[in-house]
Amino acid sequence: MLVPLVTLTTDFGEDSPYVAAIKGVILGIHPQVQLVDLSHQIPPQNLRHAAFFLANTIPHFPREAIHVIVVDPGVGSERALFYVNMDGHRLLVPDNGCWTPLTRGQSAPPVVRRLEEPRYWRSSVSATFHGRDILAPVAAWLSRGLNPDLLGPTVLQWATLEIADPQHQDGRWKGEIVFVDHFGNLITNIPGEAVLALAESSRRITIQGEEISGLSRTYAEAEPGTMMALLSSCGNVEIAVNQGNAAARLQAGPATPVLIGRRSSE
Amino acid sequence: MLVPLVTLTTDFGEDSPYVAAIKGVILGIHPQVQLVDLSHQIPPQNLRHAAFFLANTIPHFPREAIHVIVVDPGVGSERALFYVNMDGHRLLVPDNGCWTPLTRGQSAPPVVRRLEEPRYWRSSVSATFHGRDILAPVAAWLSRGLNPDLLGPTVLQWATLEIADPQHQDGRWKGEIVFVDHFGNLITNIPGEAVLALAESSRRITIQGEEISGLSRTYAEAEPGTMMALLSSCGNVEIAVNQGNAAARLQAGPATPVLIGRRSSE
Amino acid sequence: MLVPLVTLTTDFGEDSPYVAAIKGVILGIHPQVQLVDLSHQIPPQNLRHAAFFLANTIPHFPREAIHVIVVDPGVGSERALFYVNMDGHRLLVPDNGCWTPLTRGQSAPPVVRRLEEPRYWRSSVSATFHGRDILAPVAAWLSRGLNPDLLGPTVLQWATLEIADPQHQDGRWKGEIVFVDHFGNLITNIPGEAVLALAESSRRITIQGEEISGLSRTYAEAEPGTMMALLSSCGNVEIAVNQGNAAARLQAGPATPVLIGRRSSE
Repeated sequence: MLVPLVTLTTDFGEDSPYVAAIKGVILGIHPQVQLVDLSHQIPPQNLRHAAFFLANTIPHFPREAIHVIVVDPGVGSERALFYVNMDGHRLLVPDNGCWTPLTRGQSAPPVVRRLEEPRYWRSSVSATFHGRDILAPVAAWLSRGLNPDLLGPTVLQWATLEIADPQHQDGRWKGEIVFVDHFGNLITNIPGEAVLALAESSRRITIQGEEISGLSRTYAEAEPGTMMALLSSCGNVEIAVNQGNAAARLQAGPATPVLIGRRSSE
Repeated sequence: MLVPLVTLTTDFGEDSPYVAAIKGVILGIHPQVQLVDLSHQIPPQNLRHAAFFLANTIPHFPREAIHVIVVDPGVGSERALFYVNMDGHRLLVPDNGCWTPLTRGQSAPPVVRRLEEPRYWRSSVSATFHGRDILAPVAAWLSRGLNPDLLGPTVLQWATLEIADPQHQDGRWKGEIVFVDHFGNLITNIPGEAVLALAESSRRITIQGEEISGLSRTYAEAEPGTMMALLSSCGNVEIAVNQGNAAARLQAGPATPVLIGRRSSE
Repeated sequence: MLVPLVTLTTDFGEDSPYVAAIKGVILGIHPQVQLVDLSHQIPPQNLRHAAFFLANTIPHFPREAIHVIVVDPGVGSERALFYVNMDGHRLLVPDNGCWTPLTRGQSAPPVVRRLEEPRYWRSSVSATFHGRDILAPVAAWLSRGLNPDLLGPTVLQWATLEIADPQHQDGRWKGEIVFVDHFGNLITNIPGEAVLALAESSRRITIQGEEISGLSRTYAEAEPGTMMALLSSCGNVEIAVNQGNAAARLQAGPATPVLIGRRSSE
């Protein structure tokens, strides 16, 4: 028999009892689950950070896994809680759009159910901790084989996160930083392939008034401390400092504009 | 056959080798255990933080789990190490009181054994790392089915943590902050039910010279940035700022006094 | 059938998607693995920190475990990736020397293979994330029983990390700090046994102009706030402040010199 997988992604940190309470509730209902921590360091209530995180992790997992996601600025309000099946990937997540970037490029729309059956919840539900009282027990019951059709009715509408698409005009790309990683590397929303399609002389990246020429292949290609642009492991253009912190150096972060291409005056 | 669960709660952080060494020792004796991290971010040697953490997590776990707790300012001193069975929950913990709030509301007293049988320890015991050298191997042997009676004699006395109880007089409650969570939410020792029993006009919370009127049901009920009081997920009164940090705003933390009720001059 | 163990040690932190992506890739190939987090808080690209960490954790694990280590300042460069079998402990690690302190005291040399068979890698390999695209899938295939001989040819040379050995002359020891732990305890490269062999009157430790007399047995032996020297749990001399932070107090860290013994003028 296979060990079912339940993964956890939250903004709870690890100093508070919240993550451990969720683990206890899941294991209390199904002690044979394998729990997998994805992250508890999503910045508090940062849906964009969560969205990038999920889009770059969930697709790698086997389809049988159940993913509990608790980044939930609207906890206790009227926002719904969802069971989502997207191409076999199963999520339990508040209706706040953090999962919608995962649907990009999918051939079929997701199946989304609104969690409405309290019989699969804890008997007493706190207004401030739906992760522990609703999502955790539902994940545990699903891992025991519960038919998701029993969780609640399907819905056809949900919150989506507005994600800025890069602009392409006259051979130039205009985009922005969408994620700063642990090393201070700046990941843009501009696809690497698009830049590789430019003539080499046009591969000029401008950010915060600084200009970088060309795309490096790896961090190690530049001297330590040198700023560079390269293809990030998620496929987009990334701005980095070899063995340094590009975000700190450039005072850049999410939404900082990035230009790629020749200047219009040229 | 069931996979046995061993959970870990420490103040070791994750940059040092201590947590991983404990995991190695446990898996070295019993590779088939499922290890579950509860937290390694308990503030160093902070027994009150650990006590609140444990009281709000351990009860959710299935009774077969074994909980290793290493917050141990007295390591190497004469303080005992305990095996505790409390209503089926099994702890391995130093005798420093951090587990005693868990005993509140229990119908039966815990069974406590002093660990005295070196045959279940590592062959060489460091004076500064009993977590690795005593608690970890004992947890592994227990998970393999060792009879806990063999660990050492029962004891009837143990350290307890002095926990301030809130005072109730003339319809007013006098309590204090007992925990600051990852979001800066301030959790008091005043039971939410008690406040709900007050007339609405008396539900006035005073902390650090600021007054909050009424209990909100959820964070989302107030505008972002607004201070509020509400029922925490642990059942007590909590002071929070919607999408903000109440601890930073109020310069408040553990032991900060909190008053609920009409002013005595009224 | 036994559940195979795969451990993870990285400098990725937990706010970025990198650790979770590695977990997804491994579980995508072999959902029945038990993943064990050793640390994701190795300071970025700090090979010396990683080396101390690994030397004090890996030996505790059962030999069947597979250890994935991603502290990799040279990612994408020509540095090799290795499968290492050292006395039955199996590592997947970049050729950067962080694992070589583990070989000290081993009776037999390690078997080292250079990973060269792309059939066990992800079909598309990013130049900046070999942990996800090469090490993770190889770990998963090994955990499914793949014969390591198929991974690539054995090699007989590898990078080693220069580790300063302490100097012993005229009854005095000259060493340095090699690790600062989560509590600010300073761990030296001077073996505790060597100091215990000195006459008691010669057990004087000098660091940053301060002198400590004698070795304490435990933190608790000194008053809170007192600086002391003692045997660390790894066997070397450690400098600590009971319930305080010695690194901050002494402004000391890796490579800070430490002297033990009588002054030469005496």
